[in-house]
Amino acid sequence: MPYFDAASAAPLHPVARQALLAALDEGWADPARLYREGRRARMLLDAAREAAAEAVGCRPDELVFTPSGTRAVHAGVAGALAGRRRAGERLVVSAVEHSSVLHAGEAHAAAGGTVAEVPVGRSGAVDPEVFAEALDSRTALACLQSANHEVGTEQPVAEVAAACREAEVPLLVDAAQSLGWGPVPEGWSLLAASAHKWGGPAGVGLLAVRKGVRFAPQGPSDERESGRAPGFENLPAIVAAAASLRAVRAEAAAESARLRALVDRIRTRVPELVPDVEVVGDPLRRLPHLVTFSCLYVDGETLLAELDREGFSVSSGSSCTSSTLTPSHVLRAMGVLSEGNVRVSLPAGTTTEDVDRFLAVLPGVVASVRDRLGAPSAMFAPPEETSGTLVVDALGRRCPIPVIELAKVIGDVPVGATVTVLSDDEAARLDIPAWCEMRGQEYVGEEAWPKGGTAYLVRRVS
Amino acid sequence: MPYFDAASAAPLHPVARQALLAALDEGWADPARLYREGRRARMLLDAAREAAAEAVGCRPDELVFTPSGTRAVHAGVAGALAGRRRAGERLVVSAVEHSSVLHAGEAHAAAGGTVAEVPVGRSGAVDPEVFAEALDSRTALACLQSANHEVGTEQPVAEVAAACREAEVPLLVDAAQSLGWGPVPEGWSLLAASAHKWGGPAGVGLLAVRKGVRFAPQGPSDERESGRAPGFENLPAIVAAAASLRAVRAEAAAESARLRALVDRIRTRVPELVPDVEVVGDPLRRLPHLVTFSCLYVDGETLLAELDREGFSVSSGSSCTSSTLTPSHVLRAMGVLSEGNVRVSLPAGTTTEDVDRFLAVLPGVVASVRDRLGAPSAMFAPPEETSGTLVVDALGRRCPIPVIELAKVIGDVPVGATVTVLSDDEAARLDIPAWCEMRGQEYVGEEAWPKGGTAYLVRRVS
Repeated sequence: MPYFDAASAAPLHPVARQALLAALDEGWADPARLYREGRRARMLLDAAREAAAEAVGCRPDELVFTPSGTRAVHAGVAGALAGRRRAGERLVVSAVEHSSVLHAGEAHAAAGGTVAEVPVGRSGAVDPEVFAEALDSRTALACLQSANHEVGTEQPVAEVAAACREAEVPLLVDAAQSLGWGPVPEGWSLLAASAHKWGGPAGVGLLAVRKGVRFAPQGPSDERESGRAPGFENLPAIVAAAASLRAVRAEAAAESARLRALVDRIRTRVPELVPDVEVVGDPLRRLPHLVTFSCLYVDGETLLAELDREGFSVSSGSSCTSSTLTPSHVLRAMGVLSEGNVRVSLPAGTTTEDVDRFLAVLPGVVASVRDRLGAPSAMFAPPEETSGTLVVDALGRRCPIPVIELAKVIGDVPVGATVTVLSDDEAARLDIPAWCEMRGQEYVGEEAWPKGGTAYLVRRVS
Repeated sequence: MPYFDAASAAPLHPVARQALLAALDEGWADPARLYREGRRARMLLDAAREAAAEAVGCRPDELVFTPSGTRAVHAGVAGALAGRRRAGERLVVSAVEHSSVLHAGEAHAAAGGTVAEVPVGRSGAVDPEVFAEALDSRTALACLQSANHEVGTEQPVAEVAAACREAEVPLLVDAAQSLGWGPVPEGWSLLAASAHKWGGPAGVGLLAVRKGVRFAPQGPSDERESGRAPGFENLPAIVAAAASLRAVRAEAAAESARLRALVDRIRTRVPELVPDVEVVGDPLRRLPHLVTFSCLYVDGETLLAELDREGFSVSSGSSCTSSTLTPSHVLRAMGVLSEGNVRVSLPAGTTTEDVDRFLAVLPGVVASVRDRLGAPSAMFAPPEETSGTLVVDALGRRCPIPVIELAKVIGDVPVGATVTVLSDDEAARLDIPAWCEMRGQEYVGEEAWPKGGTAYLVRRVS
């Protein structure tokens, strides 16, 4: 049963499992104690720290283990901002950071700080020059992920790090998605990552802070982990995390080439096999194992459920799969279609057969979901003369219905005339412009609709 | 090789190990996902929460899992204080709480709040009436441990909970040391605990917050664990923690009776076998498996090292075993001797033979440490007339030397006359009065010594 959601969590690597079992026997005691069980635990902890530091490319005393990648980000952002309080109160982040970074930013804003979001292009990458312009004299910290968790696009970390050095602003790199594949380019000041993304166990993150970076840990103090991660060390899991990081790194070159080819296959074949699909993210500067596409006229939740029934576990950034019923902030920042969104992230060991079976199953699944929703399957009919402005009332209807209704009527709109879609669904704000882009129609704009919701204006140009 | 430091960390319970292995296979995926691996993880998480809630005595939706007991306390204190901000800014804690509670209090004070410490008696317990008096109209939260981690004394939780209810102040109970032995008495509002104290794995704490208790989680937000514990759930470890809690509870009645008898044996025999020993903590209202005693004229660090060489792993609250070179705040609050301090906490399965071997080894170890330090071994000689005030200069000498020097000269002091001990060691402030109490001499008081350090005045009365 192919599991295609490695970007959420990967199954435990066999090396991690072995290390975990050994460390459960040898590393359960308190590493702060001086008796033999404590000394043994301390040796395991020191060895794990050295192995992780080598993989990260830092000194062991620059690296602490945290209970998760999220906690590493929270502690890193809060500590770096507090350490640079005198420099300023401004935090600069890319618009497509992981929610842990954005939530740390919200907490900073709630405490009186300011947060500036650097936009991304349609591929999901920031422009280093635009990022550099956001670094003003009040900027205490900048955050940039190494690669995006939803669309796989690699960020220009080296260029942004150079700009940060120039501006004398420390850069925190969230390397959660990429650390298993290789080290982050030089120039970062802080780095955060998460073990269960590279085949380590849950319960372990890491935070590296370069010597010389001003850092003031926030929250109640604690002697463990250099005062940067309170609480008893999760030692067996830390040992397993370090062991699996070393193991996946040893396999990374070969495995990434293999998975990159499988992802290229998906990137090429999906638009050939399924009509009205947008593959998103940078086709070249990307994670080896991750590809995301969106299917017009499809409801993401139903699509995921159907794929699950066929044995495929994938995730989605569609609004209907989110508890808040808003599309993923990443897709929104990129300005790409969010309806029928599917993220495929291949774990190590995924076979060509797994991928081929997925490609065999997907077209039928998408077609059946579209059928059930009454989506337009053919190209629209030649335009006829109609009078007045066409208004499609999709108020109260959720994604992907507003776009489906738009697609149904566009054939009735004369070239040069407009159609208005009324919708109160958050996804429409992203998906109606994205549909126009895909279909070669002109998106004119939106305005508030007096009786509630929003009116989206589209001009037929072809 | 007997390990006698279960109060720091216990080896993994066999049931926990089994559950962990099973959950590594079944519970590695993200429980927030809707595909089959995610649903399976969610089921394991729900089942673990139900089992833990049953053992705690609360509803499953009142309980969240945290990365450690320390983080449970930090989150609980911060969330409860913020939730009651309008009621007031005062935090009331016992003087012998775990450092995680005291550190949370320090963070609260640093943010402008106030912290009141309720003193304890020589047994280590608070007086419920004194605790009640500390609860004023500005009190936002009170914290009381269920039992003390260093001396084993049980706190009068039910009485203090009643006083808190009367004062309409929520009570957070740190149940880290006792939860494996049984539920906390009714009346608490928040409860924190730590799995590796009950034979669960590291990396798991729990925080229960009763419905109706005002609670505002602090720090960056996150959707997981009801917004109270950010980051990917440490699921296999959570499953193992819940399984071992259930398992140790099933064994608790029998095992606690057995260990209680072994601890009674230590409490009785140590003072018979080793001269000049003070056994501390309540002899009856106490944890079943824990006993602490202090040995006059002994350096705790050397004592622990010698016991370790003999195969016994114990811990100590002596100043010389602390990174800050101050005696344990618990012993200090109790006003008992801190030098030569030994905490013995028996893990489940400790045998009578283990304990008897400890009792056989201890007297020789203590005697050898005392010999090396030149400690007075006999009762002092009959007093002779001396003129002037005797001054013992122990400046620059560390615990237990100042007390040893005092004991050496006390025989030269006429009954009714005084001796002054000069010391700049923090432990002397606790241990010189404690020595007087043990020896039946009068501790007169202390004053700053003009050339640095402190002068401690002792009157010979017997």
